[in-house]
Amino acid sequence: MQRKVLAAALGAIGLGAALCANAGTLDWKCESKFGPNDQIGNANYITPEKTLAATKLITKGKAYRLGIEVNSKTPAYPPRYFTVTVVQPGQTNGATLGPNKLTYNDDIIAGWNGVGPQIDGFGHIGIDGVYYNCNKGDIGKITGLTKLGIETVPAIATRGIVLDMRMGGDVVKEGTAFNRAEIEAAMKRQGIKSIDKGDVVLFHTGWASLIGKDDKRYSSGEPGLGIDGAKYLAERGIAAVGSDTWGVEVLPFEKDAGVFEVHQILIPMNGIYILENINTDELVKDQAWEFLFTLGPARMTGAVQAIVNPIAIK
Amino acid sequence: MQRKVLAAALGAIGLGAALCANAGTLDWKCESKFGPNDQIGNANYITPEKTLAATKLITKGKAYRLGIEVNSKTPAYPPRYFTVTVVQPGQTNGATLGPNKLTYNDDIIAGWNGVGPQIDGFGHIGIDGVYYNCNKGDIGKITGLTKLGIETVPAIATRGIVLDMRMGGDVVKEGTAFNRAEIEAAMKRQGIKSIDKGDVVLFHTGWASLIGKDDKRYSSGEPGLGIDGAKYLAERGIAAVGSDTWGVEVLPFEKDAGVFEVHQILIPMNGIYILENINTDELVKDQAWEFLFTLGPARMTGAVQAIVNPIAIK
Amino acid sequence: MQRKVLAAALGAIGLGAALCANAGTLDWKCESKFGPNDQIGNANYITPEKTLAATKLITKGKAYRLGIEVNSKTPAYPPRYFTVTVVQPGQTNGATLGPNKLTYNDDIIAGWNGVGPQIDGFGHIGIDGVYYNCNKGDIGKITGLTKLGIETVPAIATRGIVLDMRMGGDVVKEGTAFNRAEIEAAMKRQGIKSIDKGDVVLFHTGWASLIGKDDKRYSSGEPGLGIDGAKYLAERGIAAVGSDTWGVEVLPFEKDAGVFEVHQILIPMNGIYILENINTDELVKDQAWEFLFTLGPARMTGAVQAIVNPIAIK
Amino acid sequence: MQRKVLAAALGAIGLGAALCANAGTLDWKCESKFGPNDQIGNANYITPEKTLAATKLITKGKAYRLGIEVNSKTPAYPPRYFTVTVVQPGQTNGATLGPNKLTYNDDIIAGWNGVGPQIDGFGHIGIDGVYYNCNKGDIGKITGLTKLGIETVPAIATRGIVLDMRMGGDVVKEGTAFNRAEIEAAMKRQGIKSIDKGDVVLFHTGWASLIGKDDKRYSSGEPGLGIDGAKYLAERGIAAVGSDTWGVEVLPFEKDAGVFEVHQILIPMNGIYILENINTDELVKDQAWEFLFTLGPARMTGAVQAIVNPIAIK
Repeated sequence: MQRKVLAAALGAIGLGAALCANAGTLDWKCESKFGPNDQIGNANYITPEKTLAATKLITKGKAYRLGIEVNSKTPAYPPRYFTVTVVQPGQTNGATLGPNKLTYNDDIIAGWNGVGPQIDGFGHIGIDGVYYNCNKGDIGKITGLTKLGIETVPAIATRGIVLDMRMGGDVVKEGTAFNRAEIEAAMKRQGIKSIDKGDVVLFHTGWASLIGKDDKRYSSGEPGLGIDGAKYLAERGIAAVGSDTWGVEVLPFEKDAGVFEVHQILIPMNGIYILENINTDELVKDQAWEFLFTLGPARMTGAVQAIVNPIAIK
Repeated sequence: MQRKVLAAALGAIGLGAALCANAGTLDWKCESKFGPNDQIGNANYITPEKTLAATKLITKGKAYRLGIEVNSKTPAYPPRYFTVTVVQPGQTNGATLGPNKLTYNDDIIAGWNGVGPQIDGFGHIGIDGVYYNCNKGDIGKITGLTKLGIETVPAIATRGIVLDMRMGGDVVKEGTAFNRAEIEAAMKRQGIKSIDKGDVVLFHTGWASLIGKDDKRYSSGEPGLGIDGAKYLAERGIAAVGSDTWGVEVLPFEKDAGVFEVHQILIPMNGIYILENINTDELVKDQAWEFLFTLGPARMTGAVQAIVNPIAIK
Repeated sequence: MQRKVLAAALGAIGLGAALCANAGTLDWKCESKFGPNDQIGNANYITPEKTLAATKLITKGKAYRLGIEVNSKTPAYPPRYFTVTVVQPGQTNGATLGPNKLTYNDDIIAGWNGVGPQIDGFGHIGIDGVYYNCNKGDIGKITGLTKLGIETVPAIATRGIVLDMRMGGDVVKEGTAFNRAEIEAAMKRQGIKSIDKGDVVLFHTGWASLIGKDDKRYSSGEPGLGIDGAKYLAERGIAAVGSDTWGVEVLPFEKDAGVFEVHQILIPMNGIYILENINTDELVKDQAWEFLFTLGPARMTGAVQAIVNPIAIK
Repeated sequence: MQRKVLAAALGAIGLGAALCANAGTLDWKCESKFGPNDQIGNANYITPEKTLAATKLITKGKAYRLGIEVNSKTPAYPPRYFTVTVVQPGQTNGATLGPNKLTYNDDIIAGWNGVGPQIDGFGHIGIDGVYYNCNKGDIGKITGLTKLGIETVPAIATRGIVLDMRMGGDVVKEGTAFNRAEIEAAMKRQGIKSIDKGDVVLFHTGWASLIGKDDKRYSSGEPGLGIDGAKYLAERGIAAVGSDTWGVEVLPFEKDAGVFEVHQILIPMNGIYILENINTDELVKDQAWEFLFTLGPARMTGAVQAIVNPIAIK
């Protein structure tokens, strides 16, 4: 029956055939690593010392925008959508305002926060109704989360690492899982000695190059983090993990993995933010493997996610 | 008749009595300072050298969130509004997804980009239908600007300066204009030697402390940049100017000033971004007068503005 | 604990103190009165014969709009809201289209269906996850109900009755319950001999006159149908019941009544549509007690409710 | 240059190649047929006598829903869209409300009024900034029209006529214009003696059968009213004209016709409502050529259009 619920639910969210209902590998007893009131998880490791050390990685002063563009054509997880409407209030028939002939545009947005480059907050994913830091049951209202909302994300300024997971080809194949072996091999190739507490790790796969060219393929699978890889990164205490894919975790899911189980390992079990649809192209082109990573998501009270555009500085 | 149009238009946008229609001080012939294709204005001054120098201002590794929270109660320029709705797709009656019992929240946003902490892009303000860099007439469609959209804003990582404009009191009075004298006096008080090309200048007025306490007063006026002050900053080549107020410029407008004329001096005439509803409290409390300022607005294609949360690092 | 859940839930929807958690009077075993596939309930009684008979009530040819106006100021059940935005696509700076100088306005709506004059469809209310006609569990997706959606409402053209429940005063007091005695007394006063299968019964209370004058009072209670009155009407087989109030049922709820239990008696238990915020003023002024009632809600696929404007003809 | 503006504008609204910029046939001097304050045009002809006479057309008591269904897949004039989102406020993890275990769904709508079955109000179309009844310039604000809004549409209960324009085939070909000859031929075939003041005339073309089967064809042209046909109907004083097409008027436009010039003849020049995407199938199947037509558009204050579902009774 569980399978039936799953099928129905995934049918409802439009994923359907791409998933299969395995047993899952979870065996979880929630714990409060940073105290009962904590809402920021491993971002606690981003101390002033950590930030200061990360600023020492800057050697050239080059700044990078890590958000892809987002608009009504951006492939989105169903039924998510996103629209911008540009308006000119009070300027019917070409009227201008004041003797100084002010003209102005404004804009209205309608859609879902989870489209395009986004941070998944800790209220996004739970395990059987339990969220990060043992928050059980209701963490919010329909008008906004009352705990773990995106406004609680602290100022993030820490060491960023980008790992180029391509081996020859331009685009890593869907279903390719990044686990301990793949992660350590990439580190070795790039001369990265360690992944440390409070780091932000980004995977470059080339997958985002499909956007606008083959949206169907882009949306129906992806290379990404496997169960073992998620646990590996969690053990290292990273603050966030991202990728140039829509879901960061590998799809189809690994054999024996549950539905978006990597999301569960990262968010409720370990307090690690997820960053999706991140533009890692230029960093990789410049071989800027380590850098200062900064992120300030718009502080929409009680929001689950936010559309973002992190800034990296090398 | 111009006055009548003004009255009608301002009535439409709900400002009404707070404004008066003066002659305006504009005498503008647009010029292409950075070439005919430029869309980023004075942000051109944020070179790698500039960024690198700004990172040298970091001494403690303390990172600051500069966005205030934004939600349906945030005072907004009429008829702007902003809402978040939290939903649980496919989880009717408490259903979970998969054997791993995935629970998840998503969120929908509906409203205007220009609510709360925001960057005004160069498509926001024009003079008689002419926008930054001599862009005449149509710079966009109803589905998004085709020029000067928020997605064109570059990665901003530069020197930030906060000027504490309070003189004794907690909150600077509405209608208090910041012009050359006031700006230089604040610089002197704080030991800031110069304002340079590519800098981001933030004014701290205490005004944002009214939010939630006296929204009516908050919205009906504010201390802020005067005509002369805007020209002064423009001459220095700053990339952006912000404040802990909803409009950055002084209201009621100065005698002889037009309607939001400071906006016109900054945006179409000089290519300077405006940052509104910025939280400068902690910077001022820490006397962190100069710092690395970073900003990556969500790259919504063709958007006029964006809700932001810049990160400062001292 | 039930009480606690209630308190939390009602707190979430902003009703709070107006309600009290009584035991409820429900003892329900769902049955399929009109067959297992039925989705229209007592509207099955609106046969061509019924419609034809109702048209005989027309004596003057006067047509009435029964919808109040709805806009962003209309009192709405939290967190519901409603907005209209008027735009002029492709007409920047006063441009017109074509040699025939076409000018046009379009409009965007954002908000909830349940604001202002509305029909509650059968997917609106259930009892412990069971909806009309024994529909258990999932009757829909986040993108629309798959059963009992508003698009299933048939063409309604039937006998309408308006009962003037005021006794002297202009406005019936909040908390005044309409039960068998009150209903029959009103019928007697107005010379209405019977309430029959397929009828639409409207209560006039004067309550809607508070809109715009005392929205707070309007929203925090109302006169309306009691438990016994709901059962009385259900026994008569009416197709719909409405009122010039926001919820049709009495608030505060009657002693021993549950939370919106009248809604449960009407919708899931008896297949009776509810019509809220109905403008009965003119009908009552004209003493048009019986009339042809017509209603065609916009057929938004899978919608739960619809904003309506029924037409009565006397 | 006019052509260039046209091309740009139509490009902006996505119609592009389907249109061609002809000279247009307009020669208009607006007049106030029903007095300077009139907002309802030819609906003035729907007097109680007219309504009463129309009710005499009812012989069988059969009621028809004339609205097609509308949802996110309904073909819409770009950039229009329409979405419904179903939510369960306060019922996280399967919680119910109260001892009576209330379960409820609510729904949020986001999109444009002009999708699916719709009435075009008199604020929709103008000629060089002049609207119905010589309303010049500003008829509204961005938050709603202040004149000619959809809330001004009166209760419509009048004689309806459906004309079956198919001659043999199932679907009338796109570009087929309905002018005097075609209209009178259809009347003759169906035994309709006259078209009178206050009537509502519906054209049946079979075009709506393309929806969901060939949306591209559906949207890129249509059979419909020509310039001469529009004038013919206007001379007869009809209150509204509709069709089972998205725009009622023929596309591609007739030789020498301007852009949506039929809309201009009907709305600003003659005060005739337009009804689009009307389901005329069943009426035609039953040969219910004349009937009582009723319509009450949801009274959204200041809205330009409304999604409707008129009720016909035979």
